[in-house]
Amino acid sequence: MLAHILFGANTEVGKTIWSTALCYASHYLAHAPVEYIKPVGAGPVEEADYVHLAKFVPCKCTNIHQFEKAMSPHMSEGAMQTTDASIVSALRKHLQASSFKNTFVETAGGVSSPAPSGSLQCDLYRPLRLPVLLIGDSKLGGISTTIAAYEQLKVRGYDISAILMLRDPENAPQYENWKYFSEIWSKSYSCHDKENIKCFTIPSPPALSQDAEADFKAMQKYYSESASVGYDVLKHIEQVQKTRLARLDDMINQTEKHIWYPFTQHTLVNPKEIAVIDSAHGDMYTVFAPNAKRKSEEALADGSKKEGSVAVEENKYKELFDASASWWTQGLGHGDPYLAMSAAYAAGRYGHVLLPNCTNEPALGLAEDLLSTVGKGWANRVYYSDNGATGMEIALKMALKAARIQHQLSGKIEIIGLEGAYHGDTIGTMDACPPNVYNVEVDWYDGRGIWFDSPVVKVSNGEVSVQWEDKSFSFTALDDVYNVSSRVNSHLAKQYASFIGEKVRTAMQQGHQFGALVIEPLVVGAGGMLFVDPLFQRVLVDIAKGRLPESPWYTEAHENKKAGIPVVFDEVFIGLYRLGQLRSADILGVYPDVQVNAKLLTGGLVPLSVTLASEELFEYFLSDKKSDALLHGHSYTAHPVGCHVARQSLKRLDQLNRTAWTENKQRWLEFFGCQNVNGVLSSRNPNAWSVWDPEWVYEVSKLECVESIMALGSLASVVLKAGDHGYQSSAAGQYLSRLREFSTGAEEYGILARPLGNVVYFMTSQITPTHTVKEIQAKIIDVFSQPR
Amino acid sequence: MLAHILFGANTEVGKTIWSTALCYASHYLAHAPVEYIKPVGAGPVEEADYVHLAKFVPCKCTNIHQFEKAMSPHMSEGAMQTTDASIVSALRKHLQASSFKNTFVETAGGVSSPAPSGSLQCDLYRPLRLPVLLIGDSKLGGISTTIAAYEQLKVRGYDISAILMLRDPENAPQYENWKYFSEIWSKSYSCHDKENIKCFTIPSPPALSQDAEADFKAMQKYYSESASVGYDVLKHIEQVQKTRLARLDDMINQTEKHIWYPFTQHTLVNPKEIAVIDSAHGDMYTVFAPNAKRKSEEALADGSKKEGSVAVEENKYKELFDASASWWTQGLGHGDPYLAMSAAYAAGRYGHVLLPNCTNEPALGLAEDLLSTVGKGWANRVYYSDNGATGMEIALKMALKAARIQHQLSGKIEIIGLEGAYHGDTIGTMDACPPNVYNVEVDWYDGRGIWFDSPVVKVSNGEVSVQWEDKSFSFTALDDVYNVSSRVNSHLAKQYASFIGEKVRTAMQQGHQFGALVIEPLVVGAGGMLFVDPLFQRVLVDIAKGRLPESPWYTEAHENKKAGIPVVFDEVFIGLYRLGQLRSADILGVYPDVQVNAKLLTGGLVPLSVTLASEELFEYFLSDKKSDALLHGHSYTAHPVGCHVARQSLKRLDQLNRTAWTENKQRWLEFFGCQNVNGVLSSRNPNAWSVWDPEWVYEVSKLECVESIMALGSLASVVLKAGDHGYQSSAAGQYLSRLREFSTGAEEYGILARPLGNVVYFMTSQITPTHTVKEIQAKIIDVFSQPR
Repeated sequence: MLAHILFGANTEVGKTIWSTALCYASHYLAHAPVEYIKPVGAGPVEEADYVHLAKFVPCKCTNIHQFEKAMSPHMSEGAMQTTDASIVSALRKHLQASSFKNTFVETAGGVSSPAPSGSLQCDLYRPLRLPVLLIGDSKLGGISTTIAAYEQLKVRGYDISAILMLRDPENAPQYENWKYFSEIWSKSYSCHDKENIKCFTIPSPPALSQDAEADFKAMQKYYSESASVGYDVLKHIEQVQKTRLARLDDMINQTEKHIWYPFTQHTLVNPKEIAVIDSAHGDMYTVFAPNAKRKSEEALADGSKKEGSVAVEENKYKELFDASASWWTQGLGHGDPYLAMSAAYAAGRYGHVLLPNCTNEPALGLAEDLLSTVGKGWANRVYYSDNGATGMEIALKMALKAARIQHQLSGKIEIIGLEGAYHGDTIGTMDACPPNVYNVEVDWYDGRGIWFDSPVVKVSNGEVSVQWEDKSFSFTALDDVYNVSSRVNSHLAKQYASFIGEKVRTAMQQGHQFGALVIEPLVVGAGGMLFVDPLFQRVLVDIAKGRLPESPWYTEAHENKKAGIPVVFDEVFIGLYRLGQLRSADILGVYPDVQVNAKLLTGGLVPLSVTLASEELFEYFLSDKKSDALLHGHSYTAHPVGCHVARQSLKRLDQLNRTAWTENKQRWLEFFGCQNVNGVLSSRNPNAWSVWDPEWVYEVSKLECVESIMALGSLASVVLKAGDHGYQSSAAGQYLSRLREFSTGAEEYGILARPLGNVVYFMTSQITPTHTVKEIQAKIIDVFSQPR
Repeated sequence: MLAHILFGANTEVGKTIWSTALCYASHYLAHAPVEYIKPVGAGPVEEADYVHLAKFVPCKCTNIHQFEKAMSPHMSEGAMQTTDASIVSALRKHLQASSFKNTFVETAGGVSSPAPSGSLQCDLYRPLRLPVLLIGDSKLGGISTTIAAYEQLKVRGYDISAILMLRDPENAPQYENWKYFSEIWSKSYSCHDKENIKCFTIPSPPALSQDAEADFKAMQKYYSESASVGYDVLKHIEQVQKTRLARLDDMINQTEKHIWYPFTQHTLVNPKEIAVIDSAHGDMYTVFAPNAKRKSEEALADGSKKEGSVAVEENKYKELFDASASWWTQGLGHGDPYLAMSAAYAAGRYGHVLLPNCTNEPALGLAEDLLSTVGKGWANRVYYSDNGATGMEIALKMALKAARIQHQLSGKIEIIGLEGAYHGDTIGTMDACPPNVYNVEVDWYDGRGIWFDSPVVKVSNGEVSVQWEDKSFSFTALDDVYNVSSRVNSHLAKQYASFIGEKVRTAMQQGHQFGALVIEPLVVGAGGMLFVDPLFQRVLVDIAKGRLPESPWYTEAHENKKAGIPVVFDEVFIGLYRLGQLRSADILGVYPDVQVNAKLLTGGLVPLSVTLASEELFEYFLSDKKSDALLHGHSYTAHPVGCHVARQSLKRLDQLNRTAWTENKQRWLEFFGCQNVNGVLSSRNPNAWSVWDPEWVYEVSKLECVESIMALGSLASVVLKAGDHGYQSSAAGQYLSRLREFSTGAEEYGILARPLGNVVYFMTSQITPTHTVKEIQAKIIDVFSQPR
């Protein structure tokens, strides 16, 4: 089965003529069943493209939407009700059920003509990413419009199989644009499909008279004469498709030979479970799934199965929901054309340019944007690097040196951290973590700190509680757990303070010297997605900054920003709305001296990290000697592509946070945020909420195989009951395999989740539709309810 | 002075009409001197656009090239001789000398219509990056062509100030595309200039009769009636420009407040020397230079200075040659539209997608490409990470664990390295280097190895030599130094072997255990751009692999790939043709077990690093336990944008290496590659060559202030005589300031070089034109010849 989409470089360039010619060739020359689909048409039905086509080829013609006026569909009445998703969904189902050898989908107008919703044609159809036949523009200026259309398609990640053009009409100026595309362009620098792309031409159709019968005959003759070129096109696109499929078929094999996966024991990889990601859109991977079962044979168009020349093939492309948000990076969805264009703009304007002793708009602008949001109230400086690990290395270097000077330390300096902490995989950031499975086999690992076991927030068997060692503290309102300011004078806060104070004091008496408090606020991520009691972290910070009498650094001069030791927040994972908040400081009620952000920062496109620091810390590095500076850098420091994309991403994340994303807030308050479901609400602006349904969280927490669950923002984390806890646990395996099966909801997709031992987590993006969240929730309940 | 460039969404959309309307408004309403420039026109002179314009506005009209036929200029005779560079250079000089308040540059055809050379219009004019007025397409389909044109311009890094459109002619179908751009589009997701972009419209011009006099009057009336809209456009673009300049003026100030520069002692930064990089193209930064002197007042168009209403302003944009290749990343030039499109394609097709247990074409394809080139003969696996430092962390983890298992080591494992080594700024990679200025202030630094002082290759006072401690070995042929295979049995090789062997043996007797040899082949980079004698490194590798009797790991079973300890090549800087070779293995004649590449890998766009490894190393990590795997990863591991761009870059670098880039090879052989300049050549395929002229290298080596120089590939490194050697030396300061002055060659650009203490290095890309290399060479000689 071979479906192509026809885009036009402009309107009236011959999309319908070419569609007819191709269908004609398929039917009469290749004797291959063929379908023509016009998802959205404009103009009177009797003039519709498929009516023209049906006159000359006895093939199946399908029309999904027809708008009456011959104008851009977005201007027609009722257009706005026709959503992109509904068009794509209808077309996808139609194609999945089809068994025609060839299918041609004709778009409306040019590549960027608005769809009924106002989206551009090329954006509308992107989720299907069908191979493209680009109908080039033969008119004066058509070289320009054709290349422009081609580039727009490439920016959306389409592959173009061929350019199809009409030759100049006889007795008209001979612009010969087709010659440019046949002979020159595929060798030129601006062509990105040099290996594959071919240009095919047929003459312009004959001029029409007023004699319908004569016109029909002339056109019939025309199509008959063009059929051999049409046949050549069919052969070409078949070959391109064959090559493409052969490659996809071979990719698992080659990957097993050549790739060394991160975080992976290769002997435990099941080749059949390697996902061949052919493309991605929104939250979905489109995977090539040679072994996927075809489910909808009964939905086949009647009779199409009987045609002897076509074998019913399996549908090889399937969708997988990216439930790990591609290692926690995705917030705005895959394949976003706006972000792709932003990346291209910065690449086109700068490429990468040097930062030290220089400046540029993306780097400076992003710094300003961050300091006025994430760093508001405390940070004055942005230090750029490439990923969370390097950002944390910089943070450590900043903090340790500042503490060394401030407290006149010499010799070994350590940090205060948390059990289960993870700050990256460079050896320096590993040293800032307690011994664990990640670093035990690293030869130069040398953990440098003392580590606190964290009290953990969870929902277990329908109850909200904070678990601290063997003690459990119940809460009726989850929101209250995260209303830290109301808890700072609680008995538990006092207990935390004396516990922490004493452990630090004891260590110092034993000769330990501390240079920083380093924590992942709110959630200890790779260490098992533990939701740490925010009050505990608040008290840790207050101890580190000498604000509590229990602190070894206690001072009454609370306004002294240099008091105590520097506090480092690693918000690489949790920051920028992952947990429904811009930053943890607004929940904890305290500021750090250094903070690292990454992951969501660049909208899930390219690596970039920022280390924000206070001016007080910056000043420790000032002197008249170069060697006193922070001599740390990476070649692509503050690369404009990343910085510019980050600015656009932050704007959009903020926008989404203020609008669509938070529709669940009220439901969370109602369910988990008050004394009881029918009680009086304790707050109108919840500290804790999630896109996951609170009732679903409640339900999951009661499942037999589930120990506990917690959800904040886009994250839901489920701890499974398991004998062999920890990172090496295989408890989740069975469940994950079942989640992957392609049978979620009406759209038939699977869920690809990554385990962390016996913890299974699920992340949405900020653009995940509510109905998708509901579908996934239902599937999770279903899978987790089955026996293991 | 305000110059704009007018691009058309298509041909015949009204570029000339709008040009005339704008000039008319400037002249008659704003009373501001205005110039109209048509750099390349097509068609008979009497029908040329400027002839039309001159009829209605008494303003200066400039035409640079006119091709006779009314067709795409690339098809005209003689067109190919009209290079892009010559057009841009002529236009740049003209604009620099101009003092008109408003200038409008009209392009030919649509945004992508081919220029005389065959380049696209939008690529041709990109080096000037003038603000754009996009003339939208009012015809049916014009929404699509206008958005497509807009996106093409954005991909090239242009800023669009406004969209200008003609309204539909009366008595014709009213498509009202202008309404879309006036009312809908600037709020839509696909518009990237939401804040600034406005759409202006004027009516279509009146239909013309055959009566020239009547037509003239009708057009005059038309322009007169359109003048107020033209005036509004002038006000708008003036405002946009004002905002832009105000921001540029403020950027140094804001940068000083908010950015924490890498590798920079902020107290030593001179704000006046901060380069405000507004954009970049090829090897050039376009900087905003408020203090730059205007040199060419005498070249002003006659009389233009006298017009009272215009003050002669300084020309604020200047060019700076990027002589550090933006921290060694650039090989294909800034702002390459092909790479920008490649980045956009991968972003549009995937965004970022998960790697472990998955696969995708960019990640797998790049691995295959690398293994069949850089890794050919030895590597089987590619491990992805984000930058050289993380790539080296991975390399260290691979090598140390392999050695630990192989030699059953326990306790502290160290490496063998070089003095002056630099492998990145993470603490782990710092630990693989001897104590130095970079790591001395890092609290957790702990150098773990023994370090060899390297014999160094240099050209000093016209002589080629290898300097080893206090001994100097003269060579008449530089090429022979790099013909390592001919030297392996030399006396010096024996000396090296016994020296190295003894030092390692002694250390081992003292209890040191070694897990890897870690070197930067050929050039020790950040440590001072030292060109290490390749024979010394060859011997080091042979010792490490147990191939020489002097080695403590000596074994006669040379074919045993696991013999000795793993060898790690850090080719982050020197690899991928930076030194004129794909990889050092071909010069050294030995393979590593692990190699890291980065920097040039992604053509200077985004961070990405690869650690290549042999299958033997990979196998040390296999077991049935997850914890035995290499548990290292970064969120954006193998991000498709980087991988896809890298594939395109590698292809192009290889192509350039086989063609244009190597024209200097023969000259190097003749000068430095034989017994004497007039002697018989020793080789036809030089091991050592550079894009820098050998005679220039010779000349520089004789300058009074120069201690020595060396050049390979695109790198030339000059060691200055200086009292206070090392990284903290300020010897270079004076020279660097002079190099920055905007007065190099005919095109008036400065050179922005970064010092490494008393070492000044210069890098070209692979696309630097020969005349530019010559201009830079001349300026360097000039500056270095002046007293300090």
